Amino acid sequence: MIEKYSVRTDLALEEQERFASDNVEIPGVELQESYDEEREIRITTVKIKTEKGAKIMGKPVGTYITLEAPDMASADEGYHQEVSDELMKFLRRLVKEKEEKEYSVLIAGLGNRQVTPDALGPYVVDNLNITRHIIKEYGKYAVGKGNVKLVSAIVPGVMGQTGMETVEIVKGVVKETEPDFVIAIDALAARSSKRLNRTIQIADTGIHPGSGVGNHRNAINEETLGVPVIAIGVPTVVDAATIVNDSMENLIAALETSETLRGVGVVLQGYNAAEKYELVKELISPHLNGMFVTPKDIDDTVRRISFTISEALNQLFTQ
Amino acid sequence: MIEKYSVRTDLALEEQERFASDNVEIPGVELQESYDEEREIRITTVKIKTEKGAKIMGKPVGTYITLEAPDMASADEGYHQEVSDELMKFLRRLVKEKEEKEYSVLIAGLGNRQVTPDALGPYVVDNLNITRHIIKEYGKYAVGKGNVKLVSAIVPGVMGQTGMETVEIVKGVVKETEPDFVIAIDALAARSSKRLNRTIQIADTGIHPGSGVGNHRNAINEETLGVPVIAIGVPTVVDAATIVNDSMENLIAALETSETLRGVGVVLQGYNAAEKYELVKELISPHLNGMFVTPKDIDDTVRRISFTISEALNQLFTQ
Amino acid sequence: MIEKYSVRTDLALEEQERFASDNVEIPGVELQESYDEEREIRITTVKIKTEKGAKIMGKPVGTYITLEAPDMASADEGYHQEVSDELMKFLRRLVKEKEEKEYSVLIAGLGNRQVTPDALGPYVVDNLNITRHIIKEYGKYAVGKGNVKLVSAIVPGVMGQTGMETVEIVKGVVKETEPDFVIAIDALAARSSKRLNRTIQIADTGIHPGSGVGNHRNAINEETLGVPVIAIGVPTVVDAATIVNDSMENLIAALETSETLRGVGVVLQGYNAAEKYELVKELISPHLNGMFVTPKDIDDTVRRISFTISEALNQLFTQ
Amino acid sequence: MIEKYSVRTDLALEEQERFASDNVEIPGVELQESYDEEREIRITTVKIKTEKGAKIMGKPVGTYITLEAPDMASADEGYHQEVSDELMKFLRRLVKEKEEKEYSVLIAGLGNRQVTPDALGPYVVDNLNITRHIIKEYGKYAVGKGNVKLVSAIVPGVMGQTGMETVEIVKGVVKETEPDFVIAIDALAARSSKRLNRTIQIADTGIHPGSGVGNHRNAINEETLGVPVIAIGVPTVVDAATIVNDSMENLIAALETSETLRGVGVVLQGYNAAEKYELVKELISPHLNGMFVTPKDIDDTVRRISFTISEALNQLFTQ
Repeated sequence: MIEKYSVRTDLALEEQERFASDNVEIPGVELQESYDEEREIRITTVKIKTEKGAKIMGKPVGTYITLEAPDMASADEGYHQEVSDELMKFLRRLVKEKEEKEYSVLIAGLGNRQVTPDALGPYVVDNLNITRHIIKEYGKYAVGKGNVKLVSAIVPGVMGQTGMETVEIVKGVVKETEPDFVIAIDALAARSSKRLNRTIQIADTGIHPGSGVGNHRNAINEETLGVPVIAIGVPTVVDAATIVNDSMENLIAALETSETLRGVGVVLQGYNAAEKYELVKELISPHLNGMFVTPKDIDDTVRRISFTISEALNQLFTQ
Repeated sequence: MIEKYSVRTDLALEEQERFASDNVEIPGVELQESYDEEREIRITTVKIKTEKGAKIMGKPVGTYITLEAPDMASADEGYHQEVSDELMKFLRRLVKEKEEKEYSVLIAGLGNRQVTPDALGPYVVDNLNITRHIIKEYGKYAVGKGNVKLVSAIVPGVMGQTGMETVEIVKGVVKETEPDFVIAIDALAARSSKRLNRTIQIADTGIHPGSGVGNHRNAINEETLGVPVIAIGVPTVVDAATIVNDSMENLIAALETSETLRGVGVVLQGYNAAEKYELVKELISPHLNGMFVTPKDIDDTVRRISFTISEALNQLFTQ
Repeated sequence: MIEKYSVRTDLALEEQERFASDNVEIPGVELQESYDEEREIRITTVKIKTEKGAKIMGKPVGTYITLEAPDMASADEGYHQEVSDELMKFLRRLVKEKEEKEYSVLIAGLGNRQVTPDALGPYVVDNLNITRHIIKEYGKYAVGKGNVKLVSAIVPGVMGQTGMETVEIVKGVVKETEPDFVIAIDALAARSSKRLNRTIQIADTGIHPGSGVGNHRNAINEETLGVPVIAIGVPTVVDAATIVNDSMENLIAALETSETLRGVGVVLQGYNAAEKYELVKELISPHLNGMFVTPKDIDDTVRRISFTISEALNQLFTQ
Repeated sequence: MIEKYSVRTDLALEEQERFASDNVEIPGVELQESYDEEREIRITTVKIKTEKGAKIMGKPVGTYITLEAPDMASADEGYHQEVSDELMKFLRRLVKEKEEKEYSVLIAGLGNRQVTPDALGPYVVDNLNITRHIIKEYGKYAVGKGNVKLVSAIVPGVMGQTGMETVEIVKGVVKETEPDFVIAIDALAARSSKRLNRTIQIADTGIHPGSGVGNHRNAINEETLGVPVIAIGVPTVVDAATIVNDSMENLIAALETSETLRGVGVVLQGYNAAEKYELVKELISPHLNGMFVTPKDIDDTVRRISFTISEALNQLFTQ
């Protein structure tokens, strides 16, 4: 309940779970799940089909595909190859719906290269095969065999470094270089720490205000850029306030239901959700504003996952 | 109470506060405070004088000086100069007790350069004036006027990168190059998020197991290195579990004392500290292990503070 | 003579010297020199006033100010402050001719952050006080006292990383954010290794094809961007072929004039400049294409000079 | 001839070529060559067997294996895999002569991470699978299947950053952690620019004074460390003076033999090698001291080759 007031997640899957736990079907929202046992990859597709669904979910109409791969945070190279292949397939499907055999794409690596959990986007760009300038100068056969696409990339930086909204920079570059579509890579905030670095979300809706660690205000989507935007995101942080909220909610739930603490339960049951939320809010340190929670091995994990994503993209663009 | 079982802080000041809040004088521990109103710098000196005090405090016998400067996290250059001057004075006092006019010193920049809040030590080393090799080859007059000292520095990296305990590396270098003493710089974990990036702790006891973000096991002190070790640390993270603990403790305290929730209070008062701790522990997500909390602007802050510290050291070594 | 065919320098001063050495006054080109003995800073202003002058000089019509400060490559902090002040004065003069008291400026840090001698532009941006986003949201009084300007910055990367011409990116950003003018910072190629890291060139003409280490094709100037462009450059490399050319030219000159080698002189005097150039060209390794010469301590030097420049800009924008 | 006085190369192959070009067999030096046409990899083994040979070659007694792979500077991933495999085989042979099935090894990544062409060693270490700390704590089965070795690594930095000779640091670490042998990775200087980034040298002699870009004084070998040292090096720079020397030597040779310039030849033939060397030395700019020549795409190339080497090592240590 508390989360209704304060939850912060960039994952459509987690938004959906909030309601699913109440066994409520959300009008205008479709859910599909599949699980690949051998490779331990769970795919969840959340389709927000109506504006009503969008309002409830707090996310725009569109398709959100989530790959959950528990071992993605680990160092197993073969496993990363499998996740990369899977990711590529989903991206190919999304791109095929929109694009011809020949197309040009701009990859935007959002986030702050200097802050480890926010460096996912810049790191992905570091490992991309950039081809636009070569094809423009020497023709497509200069790049290699196959159906090579025109790939360009930008690392726009964050507002504190540039003084500009990220969307201003990307929009300017899109207008000048006219790619057929944009793929935006960004670090996300999850609600649950167990999803950190184990989940990739692909959305055909672009990126929206407040996503990621930094302040990526103003949407980066078809409306603002004028071309379709596919967003690829990985949750690398949880808002500090979210983690505290969750734990306290657990405590209150325990107090309400515990046999031994029955007396407490009786009292707390007299309060409604909003009153409990107020109770909790008062107790959370104001110093937690602007704080995030992230694992200690975040550097290795972000590097590995960014490589998994850039490999998927490099493969996608040579087919 | 809960913290008795689980608290995690590298600041002697915070250890002391735990007891001070109970108005208990700790045997074998002395406390001095002073406040510079104009510059808003608070100095607290905690002297652990006996082994009994050390046991209670969970920190070795020695002197721990803490500078708290609320604006240290901000970008005011002049203010950083003042903090730097103040820091230098304390270091000079510590060094003077031990060293002659001419001495050699090894600075160890501990931590992981790749993980922003753990990069303090490496960043400090980046800005040091290194002189040992010049003085050894050309004599002290080659370096400049004044009483220049032989300064060397090492960034040993963390165990995940080297496969070695930090102390093994530093010890090897100390044996080979024989500095008169070592200054170890490290990022610390605080208990309270309000102290992050606003506090510098100087200790004449060296660095101890589990300090900082990484796994700096095995002490780096006079016992292990054979020469005195001054530690300079800045808290840049709070353990995720600590923040949750604190908030839940606040909730329980509120429940116990609240007029409106009197019923809950009555029930909880029936439980002792250990029982409450168990209650809370069960409710904290196991996924919080190995997670830390840090501010979003950690990159800028760590760079600024590391510069403040390196300037203090550069000044110290030319006097 | 040889250089007429192959010389490569981004410094107008060096272009001018080629002719000056022949005691020829260049039509349409004005030269002013001054020397500050105390601070050992030499200022040379080359004004290219006509298209004819531009053609001879191989540089567009405009004003090129060169600061030569022999100790700029060294670590003397006070000296860097003086150079920074001097640079600021010249920039202020250039800006004042064009801008009102209140203005907005975009700093473009050109070059490749990953290649040390080409990282000057990105490093300068790292140390700038960025204010545009703050002033836009909170008004100019949020930033501090004085006449703070709207400062934004971009590090566009190089074509191999982005697949786009630098000018395409900067142009897009200029159109979207509409700064009053642009300051472009770039590493330059000098003709003489003695100028490396000791010289700053300020030009009101923008940046032109082939400048710097990377492939910055397509001009970044008022014509392409639609707003005035001030260029600040520091030579950090010399083309490998240039250094070889120069040495061989010296050898030929020595052979022509040497008493002991008179016989050689007689023979070589029979050849005209073009024949000698062909002779030398054949002897230079084709492997030198795409090679540059740079000093071993380039990292420290580039960092220091980038700091000198960013300090000048930070000061300029608060007056 | 000139090179006799001033040549600078870290490649035994290039030393050998100097004499080979004169069709002289060097006493105490053995040469073996093989060429893999399909993969275009040339292997040259230079064995310096006697002290006399060592004196002539200017390199210590030992075996120097050189892999020349022209496409190593390019981005072909499959090709890098082949070079990596080949490198691994040679390393395995060298290691097998010395070590048992179970062994511990310390990798020293020499050079300056901040200067692109000198960053090879640090970059290799970044991609190594470090196992020593895991095996020591959890046993060898914690790391994976196969015969995993105890791998540790150190990036000691360069003297300007540490104030210490590299050998002092490595020696201290070796004494403290007692590896069975050391592998030192370093960027080298070649004599010919055509070998840059296309050549890997493996030597069982360790690393010697003046190797690489930085000042790696004092040998890192079995004599100084007390355990065997295998050196892996890649030439990434050519001394600026070397390139000029070579070109001028070509010019003089051309003058001496040219039909059209016969007159010059006659005169120059009257001078002996030392006199010609003096002639050239005077004409080379003193500003070339401490300058090096390196390709513009050095960043990409160094990253790729460092990955090739780290992959070879990672494979070697799991067999």
